[in-house]
Amino acid sequence: MRLLTVATDRGPRACAEHAGRLVDLNAADPTLPNSVRELIALGPDRLSRARSALDRAPTSYDPASSRLLAPVPDPRKIICLGLNYRDHAIETGAKIPEEPILFSKYPTALTGHKAPILLPKICHEVDFEAELVFVIGLPGRDIPRDRAMDHVAGYAVGHDVSARDWQLGKPGGQWMAGKTFDTFAPVGPSLVTADEVPDPHALGIRLRLNGRLMQDSSTSQLIFRVPETIAYLSQIMTLEPGDLVFTGTPPGVGMARKPPVWLKPGDVVEVEIDGLGTLSNPIEARP
Amino acid sequence: MRLLTVATDRGPRACAEHAGRLVDLNAADPTLPNSVRELIALGPDRLSRARSALDRAPTSYDPASSRLLAPVPDPRKIICLGLNYRDHAIETGAKIPEEPILFSKYPTALTGHKAPILLPKICHEVDFEAELVFVIGLPGRDIPRDRAMDHVAGYAVGHDVSARDWQLGKPGGQWMAGKTFDTFAPVGPSLVTADEVPDPHALGIRLRLNGRLMQDSSTSQLIFRVPETIAYLSQIMTLEPGDLVFTGTPPGVGMARKPPVWLKPGDVVEVEIDGLGTLSNPIEARP
Repeated sequence: MRLLTVATDRGPRACAEHAGRLVDLNAADPTLPNSVRELIALGPDRLSRARSALDRAPTSYDPASSRLLAPVPDPRKIICLGLNYRDHAIETGAKIPEEPILFSKYPTALTGHKAPILLPKICHEVDFEAELVFVIGLPGRDIPRDRAMDHVAGYAVGHDVSARDWQLGKPGGQWMAGKTFDTFAPVGPSLVTADEVPDPHALGIRLRLNGRLMQDSSTSQLIFRVPETIAYLSQIMTLEPGDLVFTGTPPGVGMARKPPVWLKPGDVVEVEIDGLGTLSNPIEARP
Repeated sequence: MRLLTVATDRGPRACAEHAGRLVDLNAADPTLPNSVRELIALGPDRLSRARSALDRAPTSYDPASSRLLAPVPDPRKIICLGLNYRDHAIETGAKIPEEPILFSKYPTALTGHKAPILLPKICHEVDFEAELVFVIGLPGRDIPRDRAMDHVAGYAVGHDVSARDWQLGKPGGQWMAGKTFDTFAPVGPSLVTADEVPDPHALGIRLRLNGRLMQDSSTSQLIFRVPETIAYLSQIMTLEPGDLVFTGTPPGVGMARKPPVWLKPGDVVEVEIDGLGTLSNPIEARP
């Protein structure tokens, strides 16, 4: 199933793609919540049963005219891995990390497919990073690696927009500020449930800037794969339904180019992952 | 008003201290929400009117036997400042930062007054940090410094528990992992509304480890004060009701001592801030 969150005048509505429409799940079955996060928390069995409601579909939205939010617009956590593609680590001159490098974004950074990425005046070096995002379903702590995949609700295309001047140029060396400006975490269009992704470690991942291919790799290049990442994270913190994990970016980012390439108003960035879809966002100046 | 969140068998309940009891606000006035975060979001005027309901108090809890959560147990953001006391920056050998150093904790790190801080087996150098926490009321972005104080709902005592081996000893130099283990963000006992704190920059702040005074300073030593911090943060991200800001710690942390002092099971840490109360947490091994 492909789950989306549509902004409506009644607030955000959890939907599923079905027969070319976005079906409002709570309208189809009033026992289902409006929120994708709460839907995920019900577990995969209940989610499967939600499928049977799709044909009833008393309310659905036209994908062409709907405003999408991030599929999970209100996660409790956005956890990000840095330097998690072998080639990207080399590209930036960093060592291959022996443990995952963790940083965070806040939920206010999230935005959806087709929504603008807003460049603040105070950021001068805003870069793009194509990323596979996985979403936690079943909660847990100290999750063993061999059971970790049971905790994945699904996958989505993500974009880890990064103001390099704020990420790398500030006292203390902490990356978070440069990563968490509003709209710096586009995710979508949809959350593809795990049953539709047979192997998350064999997906082509590409990023196009104004149609030009800038990143072109495969999730087979991930240093820390999904189950290892879940095992590692869950020894630190309890993972909860709807938590998003950005798994890092492959080579080709703007910072590593000569001369460097920074995003500017009028640009369009598309991130594509095989089987998950294409996330497209225009770049605009923040008013 | 002093707002608290009490864990009950009906779930978390927003309460206010009144005449030696913790009054259940929603029970006193059914138009009030169960959640301190939602209560704050109503704004200070509505919150003031909530006061008038306290005398009715059909449901209240005994502070001695109540289990407290963090006053805002479900914030959207926990934003932390590093090296924000002049003397602490010197103590750790770091330069006085020219801009705030920002990092984060996740909400799963929160815990309340008297709840145990759990030491994971994988952490070997767990340190204490007494901190003033302020809580956002009115949301905003690009908030000017001279209006910033209007956005503060109140203040609380916080403890930024820090596994130094995870904060400082991992590839990438990111502090977040060492700061966000479950229970590493005790806050409480209560959120003291801003009207009861005439000057947040003139409060004695102390930390005692097993009764021994380890930190003893004043919020007058803050490098970046509350309004400057709000102005700085809000140019990066939209601040929302219930967001917590940990403002950094004064000198005296365990890491800076010779020999260093690390927390161990059986210890008790008390953080006290003038006018805000005392936050006490026992240290236990995580099972």
